[in-house]
Amino acid sequence: MASVKDQLFDYVHVQRGKPPHVKKVTVVGVGQVGMACAYSIMQQGICRELALVDVVEDKLKGELLDLQHGQRFVKNIDIQASTDYAISANSDVCIVTAGCRQKEGESRRNLVQRNVNIFKAIIPQLVKYSPNTVLMIVSNPVDILTYAAWKISGLPHERVIGSGTNLDTARFHFLISEKLNIAPNNVHGWIIGEHGDASVPVWSGVNIGGVNLKSLNPAMGTDEDPEKWSGVHEKVVNSAYEVIKKKGYTSWAIGLSVANMTQTLLRNQKNVHAISVLAKGFHGIENEVFLSLPSVLGAEGVICVIKQTLDENEVKKLQNCARTMHEIQETLEF
Amino acid sequence: MASVKDQLFDYVHVQRGKPPHVKKVTVVGVGQVGMACAYSIMQQGICRELALVDVVEDKLKGELLDLQHGQRFVKNIDIQASTDYAISANSDVCIVTAGCRQKEGESRRNLVQRNVNIFKAIIPQLVKYSPNTVLMIVSNPVDILTYAAWKISGLPHERVIGSGTNLDTARFHFLISEKLNIAPNNVHGWIIGEHGDASVPVWSGVNIGGVNLKSLNPAMGTDEDPEKWSGVHEKVVNSAYEVIKKKGYTSWAIGLSVANMTQTLLRNQKNVHAISVLAKGFHGIENEVFLSLPSVLGAEGVICVIKQTLDENEVKKLQNCARTMHEIQETLEF
Amino acid sequence: MASVKDQLFDYVHVQRGKPPHVKKVTVVGVGQVGMACAYSIMQQGICRELALVDVVEDKLKGELLDLQHGQRFVKNIDIQASTDYAISANSDVCIVTAGCRQKEGESRRNLVQRNVNIFKAIIPQLVKYSPNTVLMIVSNPVDILTYAAWKISGLPHERVIGSGTNLDTARFHFLISEKLNIAPNNVHGWIIGEHGDASVPVWSGVNIGGVNLKSLNPAMGTDEDPEKWSGVHEKVVNSAYEVIKKKGYTSWAIGLSVANMTQTLLRNQKNVHAISVLAKGFHGIENEVFLSLPSVLGAEGVICVIKQTLDENEVKKLQNCARTMHEIQETLEF
Amino acid sequence: MASVKDQLFDYVHVQRGKPPHVKKVTVVGVGQVGMACAYSIMQQGICRELALVDVVEDKLKGELLDLQHGQRFVKNIDIQASTDYAISANSDVCIVTAGCRQKEGESRRNLVQRNVNIFKAIIPQLVKYSPNTVLMIVSNPVDILTYAAWKISGLPHERVIGSGTNLDTARFHFLISEKLNIAPNNVHGWIIGEHGDASVPVWSGVNIGGVNLKSLNPAMGTDEDPEKWSGVHEKVVNSAYEVIKKKGYTSWAIGLSVANMTQTLLRNQKNVHAISVLAKGFHGIENEVFLSLPSVLGAEGVICVIKQTLDENEVKKLQNCARTMHEIQETLEF
Repeated sequence: MASVKDQLFDYVHVQRGKPPHVKKVTVVGVGQVGMACAYSIMQQGICRELALVDVVEDKLKGELLDLQHGQRFVKNIDIQASTDYAISANSDVCIVTAGCRQKEGESRRNLVQRNVNIFKAIIPQLVKYSPNTVLMIVSNPVDILTYAAWKISGLPHERVIGSGTNLDTARFHFLISEKLNIAPNNVHGWIIGEHGDASVPVWSGVNIGGVNLKSLNPAMGTDEDPEKWSGVHEKVVNSAYEVIKKKGYTSWAIGLSVANMTQTLLRNQKNVHAISVLAKGFHGIENEVFLSLPSVLGAEGVICVIKQTLDENEVKKLQNCARTMHEIQETLEF
Repeated sequence: MASVKDQLFDYVHVQRGKPPHVKKVTVVGVGQVGMACAYSIMQQGICRELALVDVVEDKLKGELLDLQHGQRFVKNIDIQASTDYAISANSDVCIVTAGCRQKEGESRRNLVQRNVNIFKAIIPQLVKYSPNTVLMIVSNPVDILTYAAWKISGLPHERVIGSGTNLDTARFHFLISEKLNIAPNNVHGWIIGEHGDASVPVWSGVNIGGVNLKSLNPAMGTDEDPEKWSGVHEKVVNSAYEVIKKKGYTSWAIGLSVANMTQTLLRNQKNVHAISVLAKGFHGIENEVFLSLPSVLGAEGVICVIKQTLDENEVKKLQNCARTMHEIQETLEF
Repeated sequence: MASVKDQLFDYVHVQRGKPPHVKKVTVVGVGQVGMACAYSIMQQGICRELALVDVVEDKLKGELLDLQHGQRFVKNIDIQASTDYAISANSDVCIVTAGCRQKEGESRRNLVQRNVNIFKAIIPQLVKYSPNTVLMIVSNPVDILTYAAWKISGLPHERVIGSGTNLDTARFHFLISEKLNIAPNNVHGWIIGEHGDASVPVWSGVNIGGVNLKSLNPAMGTDEDPEKWSGVHEKVVNSAYEVIKKKGYTSWAIGLSVANMTQTLLRNQKNVHAISVLAKGFHGIENEVFLSLPSVLGAEGVICVIKQTLDENEVKKLQNCARTMHEIQETLEF
Repeated sequence: MASVKDQLFDYVHVQRGKPPHVKKVTVVGVGQVGMACAYSIMQQGICRELALVDVVEDKLKGELLDLQHGQRFVKNIDIQASTDYAISANSDVCIVTAGCRQKEGESRRNLVQRNVNIFKAIIPQLVKYSPNTVLMIVSNPVDILTYAAWKISGLPHERVIGSGTNLDTARFHFLISEKLNIAPNNVHGWIIGEHGDASVPVWSGVNIGGVNLKSLNPAMGTDEDPEKWSGVHEKVVNSAYEVIKKKGYTSWAIGLSVANMTQTLLRNQKNVHAISVLAKGFHGIENEVFLSLPSVLGAEGVICVIKQTLDENEVKKLQNCARTMHEIQETLEF
């Protein structure tokens, strides 16, 4: 008896040449962050092929099956997983979430050399199998690791980005929207610089409904502000620490943030995101460091960086931050 | 100086009468399953308000913040969390994921009395604050706990459903689609009965492109089948165990399955889902047990159950299953 | 023999009390604009019930069937149509697109008394069947007709809005984004005042990536600007005329604009839209006229209006416009 | 003074090699059908680039502007239009809606030679600029024109498809769902053969919730059926005529149908659609005619055709239809 498949289908198509290219994303690291990214990307139908890579084979297989069992509820997507990077071949975007996790109370910077070592094993493999990929680094400390990924990869800098302050900016929007009781996506404003403690809120550019908020309250963001808007930025900075303290890690928000940027990249959408880019030459930064600046992203990574008008204090914070990073980078062994 | 808010907005609206009703969902239990449900529901914009309830305050707060930080990337949704069920007031759907987790190798039935006791604390609170809600039980063993929730709640049976074999059916579609290399949502077929080991695949109704697969291979699903299609069902049964063994728990697929049914309920969509319903009177079942049968769901829960034409063997399996469940139920203390 | 329906379904649900409320929208007028609105709303799954009302029975039936035949491809939605307003009962939002169409070269203001007369037949019927609805007026001249709808309806002013410059603003974003080669939704800026020739671009508030464009080019929007950005506003104003000249009417963009606002209303989303609201008291306007101002919308209509900081010239234009409108309104017969 | 653009952006990206490929669709013909297709595709974010081609320059420009003005409300998409086919270069899918419109009461077959002549001007241009495209023919009579497009194009037959009975099937689902009061996408069943009067409903394969409806009512679809289910098919056949009679043309449903298939093609989704394919060799058809059969579609067009089990009567209808088509085709001049 012929198989059901043979009885059911008559194949009329003969593959002529190589198979059609469909959008492909690889996520390296299937911890809480990696899986929140993968789950969001799958759910939003952002790509057609999704590859997961990790060193822990059992966990990897378990996560793969769990995603696959849900495929019936989303747009058709092929999901694969392997400890072998060959599975990542021809990815348009590679998202790196692997690395040692930030512990409760640990600064992001403490993690750095341990994670650079891990990157030396990961990045060359990704570039080998997807020489035209955009690398999106999510592991912390994200800015330094994006620098490390750039150095290790040999890719042009516009194709190596860090998830940076896209998430800090989203937290900023949410907290302001909560104070004002409007939807978060009506708040326009930016947090730039380092992802984490030293991030810089650009109070001068916060805008709602065509109104510059600082024009209503010139003390906004300073210690003199009777409304204490600076507290919003403090909350943003403490957010990650608080979530880690209370649930052990952050996952959902970073997953949505990464999915959001991945869609911009895959669709060549030209949206502006606060992502970690090579910041040399901007705002008087002289060293090769990666810091978040609002940038227009397309299919090939960063198209351009927006030259924001910062005040003296904001520039100083950025430069301090750049200097500290550079010092840390100098101590790294590649 | 007036506050920024006062300078920015001029309120023209005076609330007249009670605020407008928007769709609201409560998720009880913020473990891996509960959070996968909440994350999916948030991401798909299924409701406008989402409440999380759990007994572990810290974890609850951490999960709340993590979801809120991602709100910028989704449709506007208000998310709240509390250990107090008052937060769940006026929910259209309450999803119960709380309970002791199934351990590696543990049968779903073993969990039962422990979880009934937990339900005695949860269900009356939900009904108190949302007397018109639909209860969707996800905790395992789901069929018996749905029965327990019905008994404890005092709600009409059509408003108490279990997530049942909606997920087993999705796994079934995925595995068949993989064998045939088509998209999973083109496979029509059902797994009914108990969620888990004793589930019943209805081979006689598997249909692709208007073709009944069993008409092509009458031995399908039996031991005589040279193509061993019954292996697909075995894989479905083993799926949960395998995922639990490899990653410790299942989460992503059940999250998508629950979100899928929640949308049907909230939109009054009248889609057919395999969910756990009061099965008395169907297929010769004489006791008050809950088992999954394909049912049309709307805003008030189950609208009708589909009377499938089952073969003798399938009916026997269902009846056996109903009998065992009834016996377990008899031993429960409410 | 029992019917297929009786053999297939076992109804377990007895309707207890009134059926569950689902989101309902009525579109009055099935011309090109009304149908583009209906098609967009259907396609985006914005509501669960859609009612179409028109006086031309044949056309109405044809449009109904054509939408219904496509239901298989969208989320489940019930669509009905009738010349009798009873079909619109219990709508959350009523969208009025009926009216004589703006002819090539005709000013929006010329249409006014003819359309007021039509409104006297429509508006009371809508309010009769949906006393708690939000009325969204789309017919032109939209600002004066929104005023007329308010007067005729007897509804509180926050529940009567005009589609206003939400579309002009979208055109503005598109044209700026095209000049700068970024995605249109990264351009923040507003066109306010009258929909059409006398609309006011708020150049002082145009913002991209946290940068106020006018701070880069202080002459922006003036005759002194060497870059001639004012040309963008001229294009916005001429857009409707050009589209009407070339294809006979505008439809697609207004359909998307209306669907966008309808979603905000139905989900109580609290997004900011430039819509026509009662402008008395803002920017020195003393008469009861409706003009577009950025406003936060929720389920009950306008929640608040944003008090933009306008320059002298912008205020003067708004006031002139208000004065002219008031004069026209004085001549209207209700 | 530097331009705003130069002051705002710092371009870090140097295009290396050719620009990244994004999904592109061309729609030929901006009549009601073509524009409903374009509007649906734009609104659902199915492709990243959309090109419109028509011979009437003014109308074309008007439609282009009208779509562009709505871009702010959808995912970023580049839309272009020209009378020159160069604009269509590198399209993944070309949708042909051009042709003389079916008049009230006119049979689809009457249109044929007039439209073949039009195709001789269109098809070679499309293939010249997009040699790897999939051609989707929508113009009527669709089956013969798909044959004509295949002959004129010189493309392998699996890359030339007709929109066929995908829409008739959707109407079938809707009408059955309405009778049974469930959501249309829970009805599985197929209309195959010729799009229009001679279409063939496959009653033997209608399935809901795992139940074959014909097993409940063996007379279903025949004259002996007391429930007169055949009336559903009659309504399907009359649908197009009725809509054309009442509103002058059909547009919305065909737009959604085409968008639905286009997404399957662009994402390589492997969904089953009833589309017009080269039917020679199926069900005893001996001539090179195109008729709708359920087929699995992917990025390169038809992957395989499903071999449905038809009864004698259904086969006879298909063969009759194939014969008539072949006769008409024999009279065509290419």
